Amino acid sequence: MPVDASAPVQITALSWVPDFARGQVRDLRVRWALEEAGIPYSVRKYHGAMPRPVDYLQEQPFDQVPSYSDGEVRMFESGAIVLHIGEKSEALLPADAQGRARAVTWLFAALNSVEPHVWQLALIDLFYAGEEWAKLRRPSLTEFVNKRLSRLADHLGDRDFLEDRFTAGDLLMTSVLRILDNSNVLDAHPTLAAYKARCEGRPAFGRALNAQLADFDAEPPTAATGS
Amino acid sequence: MPVDASAPVQITALSWVPDFARGQVRDLRVRWALEEAGIPYSVRKYHGAMPRPVDYLQEQPFDQVPSYSDGEVRMFESGAIVLHIGEKSEALLPADAQGRARAVTWLFAALNSVEPHVWQLALIDLFYAGEEWAKLRRPSLTEFVNKRLSRLADHLGDRDFLEDRFTAGDLLMTSVLRILDNSNVLDAHPTLAAYKARCEGRPAFGRALNAQLADFDAEPPTAATGS
Repeated sequence: MPVDASAPVQITALSWVPDFARGQVRDLRVRWALEEAGIPYSVRKYHGAMPRPVDYLQEQPFDQVPSYSDGEVRMFESGAIVLHIGEKSEALLPADAQGRARAVTWLFAALNSVEPHVWQLALIDLFYAGEEWAKLRRPSLTEFVNKRLSRLADHLGDRDFLEDRFTAGDLLMTSVLRILDNSNVLDAHPTLAAYKARCEGRPAFGRALNAQLADFDAEPPTAATGS
Repeated sequence: MPVDASAPVQITALSWVPDFARGQVRDLRVRWALEEAGIPYSVRKYHGAMPRPVDYLQEQPFDQVPSYSDGEVRMFESGAIVLHIGEKSEALLPADAQGRARAVTWLFAALNSVEPHVWQLALIDLFYAGEEWAKLRRPSLTEFVNKRLSRLADHLGDRDFLEDRFTAGDLLMTSVLRILDNSNVLDAHPTLAAYKARCEGRPAFGRALNAQLADFDAEPPTAATGS
């Protein structure tokens, strides 16, 4: 099991988030990449419901998780970290130039051409469902998301993965599609639902998910007690 | 000048877009990277106001520009392409592991932690300004964008660039901040306005911008005449 308190690779994660966010916090993407690559890692945890120490901003200027260090580099942004791990392992990035370029292309496509739209929909459903603007906006946004997802499904066709094998691109595309787990959007895209299930069925994903879930405390911390 | 019809690197771009989009279409990011790296390129143009040929989806599944080929690889997603070009040139990515990791971190931060929010604001101002949901949503979105930009400005402080020299991270962060050109948002963030101006003042940016603008036709194409 890659979680190992003495490992040189260390990531940050949260020790408490609300139920709907469990299995969604972005350290999961990095844990999954590390599991695919077989690289052990340790975890430094912060409370999701309490302020981080001010000096955490030196490490992650937007005050988010995960950040990452491995003795050689210190970085943040889960996409950048997954790519960095990919450069250490052909399990995530093919060695040939074209295969690598396609994997990196899909990694960016997941984060830039799909996630921003999917995330807007999740924001509305999870945080703003009761607000008037959200009710007015949801139909046109849903139409846009469906169009984007249809293009993705058309590309995928009857392939198992976005290219001819699993790569970091699939890891991030699956992570992005999982944002829709609280909605029924993927019901209209069976190709994508099957693709997502195929990637989530990988043992490395299961280990990563279990590790994230195991790291959450049951109760939210309080300012009085910390934890 | 890197634009050269016989160059092995080819990108796709648009031959017409409305005025507000000129200087914003994402092939500019790739042109800028190629200019910084001193790599000549040719341009294959499609009409921004007319459907692309159906087989363009084989090349760019979301029907967007740019796509990229260089004889060795074929790819899309401007972020992925800028990174690919960066791997060919220390003008964009430092050679040392930590410098490279930080540049890649900022490249992703621009595209994933700043652009999605900035883009939502631009969407409202450019496409939905008259809609009720947009009017209701704009204040809370603006507050979020300002908070995110303040974190970025705090990191930047009195530095010239996001790290100790210009990298692909600055190229993309500047490209993202330019999305706000049609608004007054950066007036409240003088550190970022000065940073953006500093990066836009680079000769490579000027050449790239001029090349994109020169590639636009004055009039929109019509189905009857094409162009």
